Amino acid sequence: MRELLAARRRPVRDVWLSDGVTDAAIVGEIVNLAERAGVPVRRVSRARLDAEARTESAQGVLAHARELGEAALDDLLHDAPDGRPPFLLVIDGVTDPHNLGALLRTAELAGASGVVLARHRAAHVTPTVAKAAAGAIEYLPIAVVPGIPAALSQLGDHGIWTVGLDAGADASVFDLDLADQPVALVVGAEGPGLSRLTRARCDVLVAVPQRGRLASLNVAAAGAIAAFEIARRRP
Amino acid sequence: MRELLAARRRPVRDVWLSDGVTDAAIVGEIVNLAERAGVPVRRVSRARLDAEARTESAQGVLAHARELGEAALDDLLHDAPDGRPPFLLVIDGVTDPHNLGALLRTAELAGASGVVLARHRAAHVTPTVAKAAAGAIEYLPIAVVPGIPAALSQLGDHGIWTVGLDAGADASVFDLDLADQPVALVVGAEGPGLSRLTRARCDVLVAVPQRGRLASLNVAAAGAIAAFEIARRRP
Repeated sequence: MRELLAARRRPVRDVWLSDGVTDAAIVGEIVNLAERAGVPVRRVSRARLDAEARTESAQGVLAHARELGEAALDDLLHDAPDGRPPFLLVIDGVTDPHNLGALLRTAELAGASGVVLARHRAAHVTPTVAKAAAGAIEYLPIAVVPGIPAALSQLGDHGIWTVGLDAGADASVFDLDLADQPVALVVGAEGPGLSRLTRARCDVLVAVPQRGRLASLNVAAAGAIAAFEIARRRP
Repeated sequence: MRELLAARRRPVRDVWLSDGVTDAAIVGEIVNLAERAGVPVRRVSRARLDAEARTESAQGVLAHARELGEAALDDLLHDAPDGRPPFLLVIDGVTDPHNLGALLRTAELAGASGVVLARHRAAHVTPTVAKAAAGAIEYLPIAVVPGIPAALSQLGDHGIWTVGLDAGADASVFDLDLADQPVALVVGAEGPGLSRLTRARCDVLVAVPQRGRLASLNVAAAGAIAAFEIARRRP
């Protein structure tokens, strides 16, 4: 909610605030942000708000806003206006909405310039995902593509290195030597990981070196480690 | 389940397998592990198993095992038999069971030697936490303490450096210079972060440097980045 109003990337019709919200700091900040954006604020009962909300546990605040448009993959292939090369997160088949939301939040905070999602066999940006993303979808351009392997080829054609995160890879993500170049980090589904074709299309496969006895990290944890390892090497 | 049988740290009375589980690889592995451990396997109906299970979505497998004992804090303060110094994760006030489970899974895979949890105002190791931990609780000694600040003092008395993860800290976790020493990584609650007293007791506070516009990383993501940054510098 805060990020929706602060980012100002899409028109907001109104904000509903339930009587149950008594934290003065939260109420004050939302009212301030809404005022600055010229958005009316309505006080409603908790029951009315919960009936209108589309997530399981609305926290007493709700906004009616235009849906976020998808980005085109083409828009993600070029340097940013400030000259920084693309840093993309490509998500191949993650099905758990909390993992997807966590990955979006992490990507935004790592300074990623965009995200690529598969249209099929993967979670979409539902209200639950948006909530777990903690506002990241307000800032992060997201392209939804028919197939990840084809998208990776297109990234390659534009000089973007594709780095697949694969628990079985020999190379370590900490030895990655191309993080100051245009780069796309590719993460796969919980359990099976990257699909065969996606794996084959990546320029390089790296793993997060593990010292435990469990099989593998959660995809959101592995993605966070790899995204921030890339981030800290970038200009 | 796999880890419960593989780790063999606690007696298992029996394993129930529901008729609904048809994945031959999973069934085969569980039956093999159970046989090797001398544990009887019963086939039951899905309804019978779901009625017995204590997590929301049991995946057709269940075991009756003795509860895991808590570790004593004292046991976590000394070098491992192989001479490696302690590497602890101290969790101060994390209330979301998925975050707690994710942190335990991450800690195990980062090679942590133990975990310290607060008894009050924090999530405990419930079946939901155990599931999110993906078996980590079978391997990782967990000490539950009345207060985190007192535990930190005790760690300090034993020469263990306490590193608090704090989004507002000036120092970067990537510049940490004590990761080959006995070390405890301290993470705080979702939202407020470390409590005032916990923050004051840490030897050093570090942040994961962020490049986005959101307020902060999820505690499980920040904890994963910091834990693996420490792990990769250790001998």
